Amino acid sequence: MKIITSISEMKQHMTEIKRNGKTVGFIPTMGFLHEGHISLANRAVSENDFTVLSIFVNPTQFGLGEDLDRYPRDFAHDCSLSETAGVDVLFAPTVSDMYPNEYSTFVEVEKISSVLCGASRAGHFKGVATVVNKLFHICLPDRAYFGQKDYQQVQVIRRMVSDLNMDITIVSCPIVREQDGLAMSSRNTYLSTEERKQALILHQSLAFAQELVGTGERNAVKLIGEITTLIQTSPLADIEYVAVADVNTLKAVESIQGKVLLALAVRFGKTRLIDNIVLEV
Amino acid sequence: MKIITSISEMKQHMTEIKRNGKTVGFIPTMGFLHEGHISLANRAVSENDFTVLSIFVNPTQFGLGEDLDRYPRDFAHDCSLSETAGVDVLFAPTVSDMYPNEYSTFVEVEKISSVLCGASRAGHFKGVATVVNKLFHICLPDRAYFGQKDYQQVQVIRRMVSDLNMDITIVSCPIVREQDGLAMSSRNTYLSTEERKQALILHQSLAFAQELVGTGERNAVKLIGEITTLIQTSPLADIEYVAVADVNTLKAVESIQGKVLLALAVRFGKTRLIDNIVLEV
Repeated sequence: MKIITSISEMKQHMTEIKRNGKTVGFIPTMGFLHEGHISLANRAVSENDFTVLSIFVNPTQFGLGEDLDRYPRDFAHDCSLSETAGVDVLFAPTVSDMYPNEYSTFVEVEKISSVLCGASRAGHFKGVATVVNKLFHICLPDRAYFGQKDYQQVQVIRRMVSDLNMDITIVSCPIVREQDGLAMSSRNTYLSTEERKQALILHQSLAFAQELVGTGERNAVKLIGEITTLIQTSPLADIEYVAVADVNTLKAVESIQGKVLLALAVRFGKTRLIDNIVLEV
Repeated sequence: MKIITSISEMKQHMTEIKRNGKTVGFIPTMGFLHEGHISLANRAVSENDFTVLSIFVNPTQFGLGEDLDRYPRDFAHDCSLSETAGVDVLFAPTVSDMYPNEYSTFVEVEKISSVLCGASRAGHFKGVATVVNKLFHICLPDRAYFGQKDYQQVQVIRRMVSDLNMDITIVSCPIVREQDGLAMSSRNTYLSTEERKQALILHQSLAFAQELVGTGERNAVKLIGEITTLIQTSPLADIEYVAVADVNTLKAVESIQGKVLLALAVRFGKTRLIDNIVLEV
């Protein structure tokens, strides 16, 4: 596995790969890799001639007071996991190469970026869309792989790629969970033992929602009420939102018909966790 | 010359051209072509294996009350001029194909977009950056050609391409003028006979500035004062701005050193004209 840190070297390398007619799979990450990321890498390796995984803790997607400074990092372990997964190039650019002085261009996906996580994390999806747009131009993927845990992120990227006529297939992969059900996230490392235990209420509440819908519940407000009540049985859980939304536009829906997204954001202490499920009736 | 109006057909066509290893030159225009555009086409044809010229009156770069509805059009004449210039594909997409329902992604080049023309035309350069970004993804150019009359536009596009790591060379070409000195513009067609006559004050004032700098003037405020006074001798001229700015950042400069941009925007009746010169000492 080759490790590249310079943007210009990476562009040159990938231009050559594309010139040779190879298909490229790409997994953009912020590092501190876990099995969720590796599932994306495995899929990319199986579907493409060449696989790139990027590691970049992107400052423009963190708001003031968020966890940019303490975001977990373990580059050596990330290298080892990536190599084992069959990644061909690990791309790890520096902040000053990605955002040089006088940097001033931002990509904004309006509407869909302002709901759910976007409502509390101002500018977050603008930072995400911008960095992914840059990484796409540098890494020249045919297919890019994202985890469905960040459901809204995937929809924002899909919208950007479609709106800006980029020739990239966005592949959304299932959430990978710990054995006890907690959705894998680099941020799980922040949780205390007690918080970690109580955080199980997230996936339990998704399972409960599925059960309620299975027994006939079609009213989104009632469903949200039931889920909220359940989550509140965990004393450390501080709910940011429980939402039932259209799977494409992410607009709130009143009635559960066809496929709808149930999405949660809940804080445990300083740690903000998200989880979601697509309900189908 | 092939005429293509569908985005998907154009993408397919250009992907094939690129696969064959051809270099692509691209001239994005809003049509109603004049010799300025044709000078860009000639240069593109001479420097690339394949040349694309696009015609699209882009609604997102017009503000409320601007001239979107009456922007001049002559598609048949544009085709004839393009074909004569050696253009290989004329791409003329529809508004609904470029901006379908639920379209929501915009590219914003901050700072540089807010001065000069950007100060009075809110959102104009956001529309320009967005449409050019889309056209670049569709037409896959190696080089894109822009007229220096729209100096700020060229700088916005350069910044976007650099910031978003797009692999495209931006070529800025000299202003083409009518025999009497008026910078060519599709909007010149709006001018009445008297306005057309008085509009000559624009390029005369640029020549005067060059003369003043040639005889030692280094004070930007004084230079702007002299130019303003000269333009005001044309009773129909309504000055929007006369500015002396850094050639790269477009920030106002106080002293004329090295290369500086002198840029003008002046209205004659309903018609807004711009012109500029790079002064060098």
